[in-house]
Amino acid sequence: MRQSHTTLTIGTRGRGLAEITDEVARWLAQENYETGLLTVFCRHTSASLVIQENADPSVQRDLEDFFARIAPEEFSYTHDTEGPDDMPAHIRAALTQTSLSIPVIAGRMALGTWQGIYLFEHRSARHRRQIVLHILGA
Amino acid sequence: MRQSHTTLTIGTRGRGLAEITDEVARWLAQENYETGLLTVFCRHTSASLVIQENADPSVQRDLEDFFARIAPEEFSYTHDTEGPDDMPAHIRAALTQTSLSIPVIAGRMALGTWQGIYLFEHRSARHRRQIVLHILGA
Amino acid sequence: MRQSHTTLTIGTRGRGLAEITDEVARWLAQENYETGLLTVFCRHTSASLVIQENADPSVQRDLEDFFARIAPEEFSYTHDTEGPDDMPAHIRAALTQTSLSIPVIAGRMALGTWQGIYLFEHRSARHRRQIVLHILGA
Repeated sequence: MRQSHTTLTIGTRGRGLAEITDEVARWLAQENYETGLLTVFCRHTSASLVIQENADPSVQRDLEDFFARIAPEEFSYTHDTEGPDDMPAHIRAALTQTSLSIPVIAGRMALGTWQGIYLFEHRSARHRRQIVLHILGA
Repeated sequence: MRQSHTTLTIGTRGRGLAEITDEVARWLAQENYETGLLTVFCRHTSASLVIQENADPSVQRDLEDFFARIAPEEFSYTHDTEGPDDMPAHIRAALTQTSLSIPVIAGRMALGTWQGIYLFEHRSARHRRQIVLHILGA
Repeated sequence: MRQSHTTLTIGTRGRGLAEITDEVARWLAQENYETGLLTVFCRHTSASLVIQENADPSVQRDLEDFFARIAPEEFSYTHDTEGPDDMPAHIRAALTQTSLSIPVIAGRMALGTWQGIYLFEHRSARHRRQIVLHILGA
């Protein structure tokens, strides 16, 4: 049993979902584990992680629309020092994931056919986000 | 330290929560770990996982009602090729869990007295869903 | 590779976020791991976990307000035997986390600068909550 870790830096283009499945898979392949547990961890509170369908991009658009409706910018939040998109970003992060746990089997993540790993940027502006990857296995 | 994994196939009866605690516990018992980390992973984007109260079934009904209100079928989504229940399913999956991490102590999952593990089916029709179980421990 | 676990008992002051980062870090430091995977697990279905900003307390207030709006007490739930705050508590728990997975690197949790670990109490009354901590690593 052994473990490895790294930190990916992902540049986002402002609000929306950015698929990172390939970046994660590439690192995993080079670390060479047959079986194990992969953890994907987002080091931010205004961006988060989600596993979603990677086939039809309209799913991503509808997801973004949903979160814009449920946590709108046009609302009088107490916390608004960083702008109207700041508090909605924290709410969206609380409703989605900070960490994902993905079993690794036969050398690959055990994702379903249509599952992709997404970094969900909740701020309007572009950001550089840090994602920690950690694997324990053999 | 060692690890084991399997894939459960669960038949759902359409939208709603299906408890899988016993199936998970049965596999765990036969793998014979004293202490470890169990991961439950759902290989789908229109079904998900949730740990909820297993005492009163009305909790499950109210949960389903809540998600029907927050992500209604009667809404003009961009993604509707698979029917009106498809995009709400993705939204409900994003709001709940794709993976659960449960410590194993004294040979059993460290669940609280009222906690049950549920597969949350978000599509109207019956489906066969794959749940990966993985444990690392001793 | 080795593992350790403990159970923290946290007294809450009724509905709201209670930061537990220090309690978790203190236990972790004494267990003396260089690298590993930390799991934080909440043994309840009417309290949950969330990683959120720990800089400005108004973020916590706005988060609580959001969850009060999205899952209000003033609603005719089927499950109401334990009072009007019971079913909203289950909904809020389903929308947030029962477990958190946090990589440990260089002897510390790989949390971002502004990230804190919070126990989110969803019931009105004070409660004593059990949080299981488990680490696998070296």
